[in-house]
Amino acid sequence: MDKIENVLAQRYAGSEIKKIWSSEGKVILEREFWIAVMKSQKELGLDIPQEAIENYEKVKENVNLQSIDSRERITKHDVKARIEEFCDLAGFEHIHKGMTSRDLTENVEQLQIFESLKIIREKTICALVKMSEKAVKYRDLIITARTHNVAAQPTTFGKRIAMFGQELLLGLENLDRIIENYAVRGIKGAVGTQLDLLTLFDGDKLKVEKLENSLAKHLGISKTMNAVGQVYPRMFDYEVVSSLYNLTAGAGSFCATLRIMAGNETASEGFAKGQVGSSAMPHKMNSRSCERINGLRVILSGYVAMLFGLSGNQWNEGDVSCSVVRRVALPDAFFATDGLFETFLSVLNQMEVFEAVIKRENEYYFPFLSTTTILMESVKKGVGRETAHEIIKENAVSAVRDLRNGKIAKNDLLERLAKSELKLSIEELTAIINRGEDLVGSAKEQVDEFAKQVEIWSKKFPKAKEYKVGSIL
Amino acid sequence: MDKIENVLAQRYAGSEIKKIWSSEGKVILEREFWIAVMKSQKELGLDIPQEAIENYEKVKENVNLQSIDSRERITKHDVKARIEEFCDLAGFEHIHKGMTSRDLTENVEQLQIFESLKIIREKTICALVKMSEKAVKYRDLIITARTHNVAAQPTTFGKRIAMFGQELLLGLENLDRIIENYAVRGIKGAVGTQLDLLTLFDGDKLKVEKLENSLAKHLGISKTMNAVGQVYPRMFDYEVVSSLYNLTAGAGSFCATLRIMAGNETASEGFAKGQVGSSAMPHKMNSRSCERINGLRVILSGYVAMLFGLSGNQWNEGDVSCSVVRRVALPDAFFATDGLFETFLSVLNQMEVFEAVIKRENEYYFPFLSTTTILMESVKKGVGRETAHEIIKENAVSAVRDLRNGKIAKNDLLERLAKSELKLSIEELTAIINRGEDLVGSAKEQVDEFAKQVEIWSKKFPKAKEYKVGSIL
Amino acid sequence: MDKIENVLAQRYAGSEIKKIWSSEGKVILEREFWIAVMKSQKELGLDIPQEAIENYEKVKENVNLQSIDSRERITKHDVKARIEEFCDLAGFEHIHKGMTSRDLTENVEQLQIFESLKIIREKTICALVKMSEKAVKYRDLIITARTHNVAAQPTTFGKRIAMFGQELLLGLENLDRIIENYAVRGIKGAVGTQLDLLTLFDGDKLKVEKLENSLAKHLGISKTMNAVGQVYPRMFDYEVVSSLYNLTAGAGSFCATLRIMAGNETASEGFAKGQVGSSAMPHKMNSRSCERINGLRVILSGYVAMLFGLSGNQWNEGDVSCSVVRRVALPDAFFATDGLFETFLSVLNQMEVFEAVIKRENEYYFPFLSTTTILMESVKKGVGRETAHEIIKENAVSAVRDLRNGKIAKNDLLERLAKSELKLSIEELTAIINRGEDLVGSAKEQVDEFAKQVEIWSKKFPKAKEYKVGSIL
Amino acid sequence: MDKIENVLAQRYAGSEIKKIWSSEGKVILEREFWIAVMKSQKELGLDIPQEAIENYEKVKENVNLQSIDSRERITKHDVKARIEEFCDLAGFEHIHKGMTSRDLTENVEQLQIFESLKIIREKTICALVKMSEKAVKYRDLIITARTHNVAAQPTTFGKRIAMFGQELLLGLENLDRIIENYAVRGIKGAVGTQLDLLTLFDGDKLKVEKLENSLAKHLGISKTMNAVGQVYPRMFDYEVVSSLYNLTAGAGSFCATLRIMAGNETASEGFAKGQVGSSAMPHKMNSRSCERINGLRVILSGYVAMLFGLSGNQWNEGDVSCSVVRRVALPDAFFATDGLFETFLSVLNQMEVFEAVIKRENEYYFPFLSTTTILMESVKKGVGRETAHEIIKENAVSAVRDLRNGKIAKNDLLERLAKSELKLSIEELTAIINRGEDLVGSAKEQVDEFAKQVEIWSKKFPKAKEYKVGSIL
Repeated sequence: MDKIENVLAQRYAGSEIKKIWSSEGKVILEREFWIAVMKSQKELGLDIPQEAIENYEKVKENVNLQSIDSRERITKHDVKARIEEFCDLAGFEHIHKGMTSRDLTENVEQLQIFESLKIIREKTICALVKMSEKAVKYRDLIITARTHNVAAQPTTFGKRIAMFGQELLLGLENLDRIIENYAVRGIKGAVGTQLDLLTLFDGDKLKVEKLENSLAKHLGISKTMNAVGQVYPRMFDYEVVSSLYNLTAGAGSFCATLRIMAGNETASEGFAKGQVGSSAMPHKMNSRSCERINGLRVILSGYVAMLFGLSGNQWNEGDVSCSVVRRVALPDAFFATDGLFETFLSVLNQMEVFEAVIKRENEYYFPFLSTTTILMESVKKGVGRETAHEIIKENAVSAVRDLRNGKIAKNDLLERLAKSELKLSIEELTAIINRGEDLVGSAKEQVDEFAKQVEIWSKKFPKAKEYKVGSIL
Repeated sequence: MDKIENVLAQRYAGSEIKKIWSSEGKVILEREFWIAVMKSQKELGLDIPQEAIENYEKVKENVNLQSIDSRERITKHDVKARIEEFCDLAGFEHIHKGMTSRDLTENVEQLQIFESLKIIREKTICALVKMSEKAVKYRDLIITARTHNVAAQPTTFGKRIAMFGQELLLGLENLDRIIENYAVRGIKGAVGTQLDLLTLFDGDKLKVEKLENSLAKHLGISKTMNAVGQVYPRMFDYEVVSSLYNLTAGAGSFCATLRIMAGNETASEGFAKGQVGSSAMPHKMNSRSCERINGLRVILSGYVAMLFGLSGNQWNEGDVSCSVVRRVALPDAFFATDGLFETFLSVLNQMEVFEAVIKRENEYYFPFLSTTTILMESVKKGVGRETAHEIIKENAVSAVRDLRNGKIAKNDLLERLAKSELKLSIEELTAIINRGEDLVGSAKEQVDEFAKQVEIWSKKFPKAKEYKVGSIL
Repeated sequence: MDKIENVLAQRYAGSEIKKIWSSEGKVILEREFWIAVMKSQKELGLDIPQEAIENYEKVKENVNLQSIDSRERITKHDVKARIEEFCDLAGFEHIHKGMTSRDLTENVEQLQIFESLKIIREKTICALVKMSEKAVKYRDLIITARTHNVAAQPTTFGKRIAMFGQELLLGLENLDRIIENYAVRGIKGAVGTQLDLLTLFDGDKLKVEKLENSLAKHLGISKTMNAVGQVYPRMFDYEVVSSLYNLTAGAGSFCATLRIMAGNETASEGFAKGQVGSSAMPHKMNSRSCERINGLRVILSGYVAMLFGLSGNQWNEGDVSCSVVRRVALPDAFFATDGLFETFLSVLNQMEVFEAVIKRENEYYFPFLSTTTILMESVKKGVGRETAHEIIKENAVSAVRDLRNGKIAKNDLLERLAKSELKLSIEELTAIINRGEDLVGSAKEQVDEFAKQVEIWSKKFPKAKEYKVGSIL
Repeated sequence: MDKIENVLAQRYAGSEIKKIWSSEGKVILEREFWIAVMKSQKELGLDIPQEAIENYEKVKENVNLQSIDSRERITKHDVKARIEEFCDLAGFEHIHKGMTSRDLTENVEQLQIFESLKIIREKTICALVKMSEKAVKYRDLIITARTHNVAAQPTTFGKRIAMFGQELLLGLENLDRIIENYAVRGIKGAVGTQLDLLTLFDGDKLKVEKLENSLAKHLGISKTMNAVGQVYPRMFDYEVVSSLYNLTAGAGSFCATLRIMAGNETASEGFAKGQVGSSAMPHKMNSRSCERINGLRVILSGYVAMLFGLSGNQWNEGDVSCSVVRRVALPDAFFATDGLFETFLSVLNQMEVFEAVIKRENEYYFPFLSTTTILMESVKKGVGRETAHEIIKENAVSAVRDLRNGKIAKNDLLERLAKSELKLSIEELTAIINRGEDLVGSAKEQVDEFAKQVEIWSKKFPKAKEYKVGSIL
């Protein structure tokens, strides 16, 4: 029988994130961690030859999973098998001194998380740059804003994009804070007291502290934890996955809205070149990618639920009821998030906007959306405020009713009002409608402000915007 | 880079369930479905040669994933690629008539679910048989029952096992009801109106109905749905995964309790032959499997959360924001459940009970647990009830205090009471304690009743108890 | 400061369900339970005067919460306070014999659940009757079915309602099975061994069994549990709340769809008499109730999450980490469900359908939806199949493009095809479009079948359809 | 019938948080918001008399809910009713200018959240101060650390407390970041374009910006959002509730562990003065409060689930399917969190440690925990390493077996080893065991570091540690 693949990894996630969480990738990260420990230990006086470190460096990417497997079958201990394999390759035995298995695995898993977070940060910024570009492009395109999914006031399509971009930006700021404050457990031993490391350094607590600090620096993680047990608090993992979920909220809202717009034919997620709609229905352009993004968020919410099942449930210095959960939820949450951004970047690249349909929609709704202004103009002409309000309301309600019941095909509210006691001619009324530009308030300036905020991130992480998304399934 | 495997499948799940959800296994199920449709269509008058059906039957297990992949790269359509491959193998073109892609995939996914449910049912019954055996074995072994994790009243260890077995039994009854009431979507076309099938049979609605019925019978699923859309309601999937979660509740409570018992050294999940504890601490026997079971339930709760994100969120005749979610959550929920039962069966096979430690615990607590009876006997001797109550309470509280503060090493409540005004000698008091047997109430009869209930299921599914669990990681 | 009210109860839930879960209502249910126990005990030989039972009966609805509170402040024990109050009112001391507090509270809480489930069942049937009426009313009204939120094939609006009704029906069947299989814990004592009850009946296990059976019968719950601990397995509560969530799936999908339809102006949830839209925008009719229903389901999913946190997490014979959770999640889940049905019934009463807009939508999309039939007719006239397919595809794609880009205002596909080499005149093409009736397949029969299924439930619970929903907030 | 109360508020939450979320409290916060808006508007040139502002200030705490209710029955609009009431009280009509209802409610709800977060921050710091005190008190008390719930290595009880305190500290840091980065939506109008405010200031965008800034400053919230819709992104609410859940992780782990320790009689959550255990079992001291804390976290996880159901699900410029959810989940999440801290502070005040039992446990396990050191000492005496390892392992395994099977009552490993070929006398072996102090590694220094970190927070928020928890239910 064929091996069963991880669907999220194979179908959706990008290659970088897969490398980190693959069996091979993890072996390499472990080896890099061991080397970092050795270097620190050497600096602190342990007798480790420079040649040994160099040899380990040389072979660290030489990963033979089958050979490791064979060793595990003999030793019945996974970490031991990986130690032996690495030592045999290097021709030295200097790794893992003063460490327990958890000292390796906890820190390496944190590294996997940390590196993955940074990849996601880059893709988020890339998505923001694209959203900013689209927002600027459609900065002045007036659309009918909707609340409760029905027409409300005018806005611009650029502002709508900026609105969801803002949500993504807020998620990014949060993610960035998590990255910048991420703390690594360090080498704390079987119950968190650093007993074995202290023994190795003859009880010299200063050296043990220095080792931890230099290790953290080496790994690029700014902080180490103080009082932990066998494991670091699982609330950390919850915070990470929870932040991934929230990071993607902007994409979620944007895609839900794009699916609704596709239903109204005002916009669509677009098609890849060569893509055809259903053979039976050539006009059909399904929001597959947007639906997938909304689906991937549901998946992420499930990993959130797994991790809130771990947070704050530790017994004593640590039990491992969390082990199997983290083995599943951590990589899969990153695969889902990465896949979501791959898909989202595709959507941003390909989305289509149907300005003619948007214009038709505006024309249909604008007479209703402009009644406040009409009221004011009528009052200026000397009509009583309450009288004018009543006239407008009566005419608007009957126009809606006639439109929905098919009595009229086109919104004729202006014509009705022109015939009423409002003292406004059809030309004057039309002029009001045509002032649509003014009715979008700060929409355009908000786009500009959004673009400015994105620019700051884009400058801070200049490689981000160059990320090229591959073709998606 | 190596392919990333599905952790739940590769590390925990059994082979049967993996077969169903593997790419290969799914291809075979699809082919069986097409063949069933063809047979029904032939019976209903469509011109399909018997030889064609026979040829399809012959090649149905001949699955070449690579060849299918290559076809998909050309057709850009996964279902079409699988149709062509199967037809080429059979040398005929008679499958998929009057069907849309969803007519295939919805029904086959329901088959995967249905078959998986039946496998889980068997393993559940197997676990119940083992729990019943253990409950009967320890039917009379008195232990100190705990509520709030502190000693409460006596019970027997058999009854404790039966209690958790009861929980599993309730889960089984629920699972069984879901299996027995499972309904298949049937061939309903692109929006649920059976338009294409009706066209195929020239509008003959009776034939279409007959096709669906014979199909359901063929698949062993008792019911078909009536008014559905492009897809069947996703509440079905939620119900399935939710029932898997609840099915495993008994195992969850049992394992949490066994982890606590291991901490008190009254019982443990046992060790496989040749297994050694930590090399540093030879007495250490970790509850790894029980912890894993508790962890797998946390995982299942995450899939429940994914599926409650789908239930009742359908737009119109169906959107596919559910697609990616089901692709992940359905197989993985079954892998997790199956892995849980594999692990649980191992625990049941290997668990150890330390009767000497249990006896020590009983001796320590029984004087406290018997105070109600002592009170009654003292009253019989003519001591006033309230006087007796006060004497006992005072002595019990001070005995506890002295035990916990180290003033005494052994519970000497009886000695204290013998010296008090209770009018009971130390012999009489000891005799009361020794009546422990009577203090377990209906515990033993409940074990018998539990065993009887399990017997009914075991007889109904006689193969279940013969299931042999393999060695687990 | 004012007391903080339960929002779900006060704003959304109906009065019946509130009565069950109110402090007062619970006191009454407890008293009824005590009376039932007494009656059984009397029948089984305990010396309880008939007058005592009668007195208790007389005062059972005489609930003075303040008096109970005052007693609790003295006894520091809530159950004890309620025992004293009831006994003082009745002038006898015969309740609670052989029972622990949990024997009272577990069973009464199960009663609250059981009674609530039955109320929800009635309202579900009432909603189904209304859905059936609407489905029948719109059985023949052709609408453009959508998948991925874009036009797919024709269906009828009645069938769309039946589709969501079907989902509700499946939820009802599941709920009904839970009610019919609901088992009560019974009087099992402090650790589940019935020690105190056995002591009361001098060890007569038959009498204890009889007591339990007669109690169950009295309460209308068909089953009692066998081997339980201090509490009944919390998986029961999970199953109940989970089933409430799934029960409401049909309403959830229906309301999401109605919100989308409101955006297209094909239908709306309607307005109460006298209700006005936004004063600024007279055409605005917000889907407030549908949004609320979708929101209440999100709330329910949270209670599901609370309860999967309890299922299978019992320590030993029972801990009470579940206590606070059940105190919140059980009543609130019922309040939310009941409020959802109150709102849903209102929506069903008031919803509006805009047939003229539906007709416009059909006209716009039908040429695309009919291309399969056009293809077949053209082939009959002697045009090659592949040639015809190419002609239709080219014309359809360019018609879509021109529509969306504003080059044309009306779908002119038929005109284009009439000018093409398809050998079909505009009259012939129009005739095909007008055969729309035939394109809805089994839609109408599915409505009939749905109505038939609802009828069965309506007959079984004849009072259900008479339920009159009050005005909602 | 009596009103149904909010259980979390009435039973568990403190008065400050209830004030914020009570109907009364919200009215006051709204009024303060209106006043702040007025003040800013006056500064920016709107003609608002100083007397008006003063009058509004004077009556702002004069809340008559019944009067507001009566007004709502007439106006059928809740915000309008509250405007009228406030204006009538003040004798002016200057509030709510240029605002929509959401401009009021969104900002005020954010204020409620913001103020609640600050209350929770104070209580968290108070809990940390108490944890720090306990950690320092038990800094040197050696206990047997457990992993997998079985004995592992020595640690100190102070370090165990510091470990869970560390988890709480991490939660606090996260909460503090959320508070410090909290951004308020501001006055953005019906679809987020500030149309009405711009109209009020004749299109002067600078004034509108100034108004928002001064408003934010006034409210003590550092930031305002840029491009939003009718509502602020609901991911904010998710982040808040999610952080509350994670904040309580340390308390969760601590309480789970204390429940386990109570089962071993090494520690307990203690009893309030006058509290008695079960009348039947005088030794029984249930971990009621710890169980409640674990339960309240399950409740919080449910509110997390509700809020991940809102995050990223916005349609267009905003729908209100979130409305009912926030109405329930936001206050209730704060009530649960506040109640959790009230309970946790009680536990910290009353917890008991049974040093004699801890000493007994250490004696029982220390021979096993010291085998690594024994091995090294034996090697120093000239015994071969592998020989010594084998001798120790054999003796340790048989000692465990004899202890559990009741052959011996006391751990006699040292006696066994003294008789073996290890070349170590019983005196030498005992001396090793007695070096227990050295075996706790950095445990004590970690306590010191933890205390130092808490000190920083305590100094920054000096009132926090003075908080006095009331008596809990």
